[in-house]
Amino acid sequence: MPNRFGKLFSISTWGESHGGGVGVVVDGCPPKLPLTTEEIQVELDRRRPGQSDIVTPRKEEDRVEILSGVFEGRTTGTPIGMLVRNNDQRPGAYDEMRDKLRPSHADFTYQAKFGFRDHRGGGRSSARETIGRVAAGAVAKKILALADPAKPVEIRAFVSRVHDIEMPVTALAKFPTLAEVEATAVRCPDAATAAKMIERIKAVRADGDSVGGIIECRVRGLPAGLGEPVFDRLEADLAKAMLSLPATKGFEIGSGFGGSLLKGSEHNDLFVVRDGQTRAATNRAGGVLGGISTGEELVFRVAFKPTATILQSQKTVDVHGHETELMGKGRHDPCVLPRAVPIVEAMAALVIVDHWMRQNAQCATFKF
Amino acid sequence: MPNRFGKLFSISTWGESHGGGVGVVVDGCPPKLPLTTEEIQVELDRRRPGQSDIVTPRKEEDRVEILSGVFEGRTTGTPIGMLVRNNDQRPGAYDEMRDKLRPSHADFTYQAKFGFRDHRGGGRSSARETIGRVAAGAVAKKILALADPAKPVEIRAFVSRVHDIEMPVTALAKFPTLAEVEATAVRCPDAATAAKMIERIKAVRADGDSVGGIIECRVRGLPAGLGEPVFDRLEADLAKAMLSLPATKGFEIGSGFGGSLLKGSEHNDLFVVRDGQTRAATNRAGGVLGGISTGEELVFRVAFKPTATILQSQKTVDVHGHETELMGKGRHDPCVLPRAVPIVEAMAALVIVDHWMRQNAQCATFKF
Amino acid sequence: MPNRFGKLFSISTWGESHGGGVGVVVDGCPPKLPLTTEEIQVELDRRRPGQSDIVTPRKEEDRVEILSGVFEGRTTGTPIGMLVRNNDQRPGAYDEMRDKLRPSHADFTYQAKFGFRDHRGGGRSSARETIGRVAAGAVAKKILALADPAKPVEIRAFVSRVHDIEMPVTALAKFPTLAEVEATAVRCPDAATAAKMIERIKAVRADGDSVGGIIECRVRGLPAGLGEPVFDRLEADLAKAMLSLPATKGFEIGSGFGGSLLKGSEHNDLFVVRDGQTRAATNRAGGVLGGISTGEELVFRVAFKPTATILQSQKTVDVHGHETELMGKGRHDPCVLPRAVPIVEAMAALVIVDHWMRQNAQCATFKF
Amino acid sequence: MPNRFGKLFSISTWGESHGGGVGVVVDGCPPKLPLTTEEIQVELDRRRPGQSDIVTPRKEEDRVEILSGVFEGRTTGTPIGMLVRNNDQRPGAYDEMRDKLRPSHADFTYQAKFGFRDHRGGGRSSARETIGRVAAGAVAKKILALADPAKPVEIRAFVSRVHDIEMPVTALAKFPTLAEVEATAVRCPDAATAAKMIERIKAVRADGDSVGGIIECRVRGLPAGLGEPVFDRLEADLAKAMLSLPATKGFEIGSGFGGSLLKGSEHNDLFVVRDGQTRAATNRAGGVLGGISTGEELVFRVAFKPTATILQSQKTVDVHGHETELMGKGRHDPCVLPRAVPIVEAMAALVIVDHWMRQNAQCATFKF
Repeated sequence: MPNRFGKLFSISTWGESHGGGVGVVVDGCPPKLPLTTEEIQVELDRRRPGQSDIVTPRKEEDRVEILSGVFEGRTTGTPIGMLVRNNDQRPGAYDEMRDKLRPSHADFTYQAKFGFRDHRGGGRSSARETIGRVAAGAVAKKILALADPAKPVEIRAFVSRVHDIEMPVTALAKFPTLAEVEATAVRCPDAATAAKMIERIKAVRADGDSVGGIIECRVRGLPAGLGEPVFDRLEADLAKAMLSLPATKGFEIGSGFGGSLLKGSEHNDLFVVRDGQTRAATNRAGGVLGGISTGEELVFRVAFKPTATILQSQKTVDVHGHETELMGKGRHDPCVLPRAVPIVEAMAALVIVDHWMRQNAQCATFKF
Repeated sequence: MPNRFGKLFSISTWGESHGGGVGVVVDGCPPKLPLTTEEIQVELDRRRPGQSDIVTPRKEEDRVEILSGVFEGRTTGTPIGMLVRNNDQRPGAYDEMRDKLRPSHADFTYQAKFGFRDHRGGGRSSARETIGRVAAGAVAKKILALADPAKPVEIRAFVSRVHDIEMPVTALAKFPTLAEVEATAVRCPDAATAAKMIERIKAVRADGDSVGGIIECRVRGLPAGLGEPVFDRLEADLAKAMLSLPATKGFEIGSGFGGSLLKGSEHNDLFVVRDGQTRAATNRAGGVLGGISTGEELVFRVAFKPTATILQSQKTVDVHGHETELMGKGRHDPCVLPRAVPIVEAMAALVIVDHWMRQNAQCATFKF
Repeated sequence: MPNRFGKLFSISTWGESHGGGVGVVVDGCPPKLPLTTEEIQVELDRRRPGQSDIVTPRKEEDRVEILSGVFEGRTTGTPIGMLVRNNDQRPGAYDEMRDKLRPSHADFTYQAKFGFRDHRGGGRSSARETIGRVAAGAVAKKILALADPAKPVEIRAFVSRVHDIEMPVTALAKFPTLAEVEATAVRCPDAATAAKMIERIKAVRADGDSVGGIIECRVRGLPAGLGEPVFDRLEADLAKAMLSLPATKGFEIGSGFGGSLLKGSEHNDLFVVRDGQTRAATNRAGGVLGGISTGEELVFRVAFKPTATILQSQKTVDVHGHETELMGKGRHDPCVLPRAVPIVEAMAALVIVDHWMRQNAQCATFKF
Repeated sequence: MPNRFGKLFSISTWGESHGGGVGVVVDGCPPKLPLTTEEIQVELDRRRPGQSDIVTPRKEEDRVEILSGVFEGRTTGTPIGMLVRNNDQRPGAYDEMRDKLRPSHADFTYQAKFGFRDHRGGGRSSARETIGRVAAGAVAKKILALADPAKPVEIRAFVSRVHDIEMPVTALAKFPTLAEVEATAVRCPDAATAAKMIERIKAVRADGDSVGGIIECRVRGLPAGLGEPVFDRLEADLAKAMLSLPATKGFEIGSGFGGSLLKGSEHNDLFVVRDGQTRAATNRAGGVLGGISTGEELVFRVAFKPTATILQSQKTVDVHGHETELMGKGRHDPCVLPRAVPIVEAMAALVIVDHWMRQNAQCATFKF
């Protein structure tokens, strides 16, 4: 249960950094969806280590194998099992982590919770766990692309801030293209900002340090009516999805924290008729009202802390309760955001497909 | 399902603003917990309209009746059904809302989702729905108070910002007492700030306008080890719980959005030995690492937008797709935050009890 | 959680025999379904004590109140809260049960599980709990009647055996009408058998004894394709639903236990073309193959043990571990089956609606 | 969701007969449980084809690989991913099944539900799916063996009837040993009956026919108090578990269908004091009262229909709606019961561990 996400379109991820592999089971996928291994792989490659000179140089090929649920190029409606073998295993490389608790990592809390942990590479707390999410998200994205062929749902995440370097407000005005996001290694669609971000990341890496930032995600093409009134609000499920990602510390939708500085008369989105449809004149809501999609663009932001692993000596404590020091080493991302972009998109896609199926089950099923 | 929250300590809320009543079923409560109607009522009274001169003057007594699950002053382990009758019903008062979609309210999205809605007072989207949450949260709080008699878990939410008036950093240094929070109608424990907040709320009300702000919530006494590694992280479930509340637009834990402006070397919480225990020297994590509680104070903040209902004329559209105007009227909160404080506490209590029970089920059950 | 049933069309029941009342929350009901209190009450009246001279003469009026989720005669898609007050409370009548464990009742196991129990009238283990199920089932039945107006789904349960008096095979050949079932107090559609059953029930009652029997349930009009391949097979969920009813000891579908006496060549249902449709020539399957409905009639049977309460003195043990005797008294059903008929129908309706919604969510949602 | 079973100790199975493999994810396993691949393999070998001369001679080695969740010989509390590769794939062998619907198989209903199916070897409806259940059940069994080292829980299923050959009542008096069950290929612990069963199975196989029968399962060592009062009764979850197995048509617990022929005065289990404990003098209840374990032996029976695949020509219909004939061929079990014994045990173990964890979560967690 704790490793499952979603109610109707649900996924179960499994796997540790240094076990036999990582994977996911996608349960509840609609049948007859065209799906190829390559479509999954494309998304995994965006998440993969070693893809650019500002991410970890680890060599992880991350080749996915679809083990079930797809027959002759289409989903069958049965569980889609997917597997990625682990292959960058260096025995002994993690011996120090067996005893020493890395600051701001999950070593201490796993020990407190389970009384026992696979210390190699962080075990289950490793970001390798997100491979399963990205693979499942690729399936969800395919559904969203084909659900209404006349109006494909597009999900676009991008890095809007690294450390204190952020995209100018003007650059945020338009929905960025995938090409713009992928144009630079940092996945910021504004080229000038991207250049500064890359420079900053290289600078902190040179110091053995790390930085965090903000990923913004937008979704367009969503019909009105997705989401639930009370607990399972669309924004609540998105918040959970995002805070379930490693290194995230905050979530906001639409006007977010800044919106609380406005008065009601400034913040309300007035309804108008546009192209014969009831539309919101502004979108401070960020695409949801009362937990349900308005049909306007979904806009949310996720805050990531700086990478916990730094190549500096830090004070810490070992599992025996003795104070000690730990020198970070190995190959780590000085900034996780560029690789987190496809993960944010994957989680958003999972939430949306799940709610779409729920909407169809309850409200589009029977006509009374 | 969409109106249920929690996995082991789970609640189902039901009820609309102007139906027969609102209520909740608490399922999974441990047996033998001492519980009285008065303990539930105390929390409902903190949420109740008409409790001060800065909240809505509506007369809703909100008397709770425990219908099941408690016998001779103790819970039996069977579902606790609780009911609050609606009694401030004014037929005809909401006729205009039958057709006109209130800006930034859920009228439009309910119509889009269900094709049909109870328009009176917002129906299910009314904040009256939170009565059930507060009643259930009172049960959860009682559990947390008694779980470890030697170390009660305390949850304290308070208003840390109204519009642009915020508590000084120095005032945030200590864990506020309940008396300090309850000392003023605005539920900000810093008296000087509270006075300014109240003044501001009265000023915007005089203009027929509204304001939002931030509620901070802290939890102390929590053992290390609560939470789940992947999707059901403690912070993810808290984020979902908070974004499931009406009018919320953002959530952050620990360093939050601001933390993304620090470098790893500045942000990491080093481990030290204090009183013979492994502790974090600082708490930028906000009490969680890798989704699991560290045993340090849990600290999170929730952003609330300004109340959507304002006593001003606004442009809008009716359900027939015609542009029109709507003049807000009635008795509304110019600022929802003071009454939202007990709701935030209730949701936090629900999340924590649920995770505590999950922890006990999986990790404290069998000794191998 | 333990008091919830169903995934998409889900219900939560609450209430004890002698608390403030019993009730149910129906969550996930499609919107716009026409629904009246009277439609619920009709089903509750079939379950009510005192309805005939072969059931308990207790005076329980069991008037239902719909508290939420219905507006202007139609469901809104929000939770339907329903309440039935308890009103046959006789303080002191159950004092002996506080200490003495009734044989073959749940007193002992509730004490073992919870360490504490509401002993009055069996508390939560009372059959009064099924009131919530029947009320919710009435909603589900209404959905099934209207889902496909051209082909309403009909659920018909009836008593096919009391003690050793069973309907002749010939009488089982046709789908009985509701009028035939309701024609006698015992709810056996074969008049001659019914007369013998009633006589037997009266005879055992005169001896202070009790009898059990079998309820058969049939469903016609069901489309092919409902159910899930693996764990949530239609027959598995029906089995769970039926074994969740008080006093049930067995479930079989189609050929059931008897079918295991046939050879494959005798048991297989051959496919034929009838009216241009692929149909099964026989129906030993009972309407399901591989967990999924075939479109043929659903046929299953449920075994009920004799009522545990008998008006005879029995040896037992008290909660202090001392052997003692207990003389049954009060007003009990000498045979629970006549009143259980609407409960079996209710549970079947809940299972089917849930699966229909699931089918629509996964397989009828998106067309690829 | 449809491929998941269990609430706290939950499993997700995936895989088709002729895809890349079959497997399972076990989520929620307590940490620090000693567990080896060999312990899983032992159970799979009991389920494996080709193990004796009365089961299918297919060559499926069914070697399991533990991919995650176990570290240095102990579970870590994270998901246990297990994989068994498919290796008896004969391309073309199933071409006829692409079009022709096998009688009493799931071909027709899968087609009706999904509109598309992997026809090879039955795809997801193949009994190969149960490999994941048996692997997960082996983990559950290990938990039950070690949960209370002083009182291990033992689960013993065995074939009590094949066609009309059944164990004598006297042979059912004792709890059979594993050695007795495994002594013969048919897994009936009574040697004389076993010999006759084997003879019958060989005889029907010689005719190209098949037989069904009954598996009885007993559990001893279970503490009192496991199970839930209402929907999730222990017997309800067992019934669901058993009816979720391929080829099952019925379930009964304790006195079962036969018990409905007794009067209350004959059926009630009187309580007595034995060895200072409150015990049931008889066990017609089969180890449960009101959905909760009594501490007496759990006794239930499962009816299996005769194998649908027979080596005879049968009339049927193809996917285009034309009547045709189909000649069964290939290597099938003339009687599935011997190989189903470990599957029944696995499902029982899963249900019991889940309920044990639930009991600990709710009732053994907090002491008030």
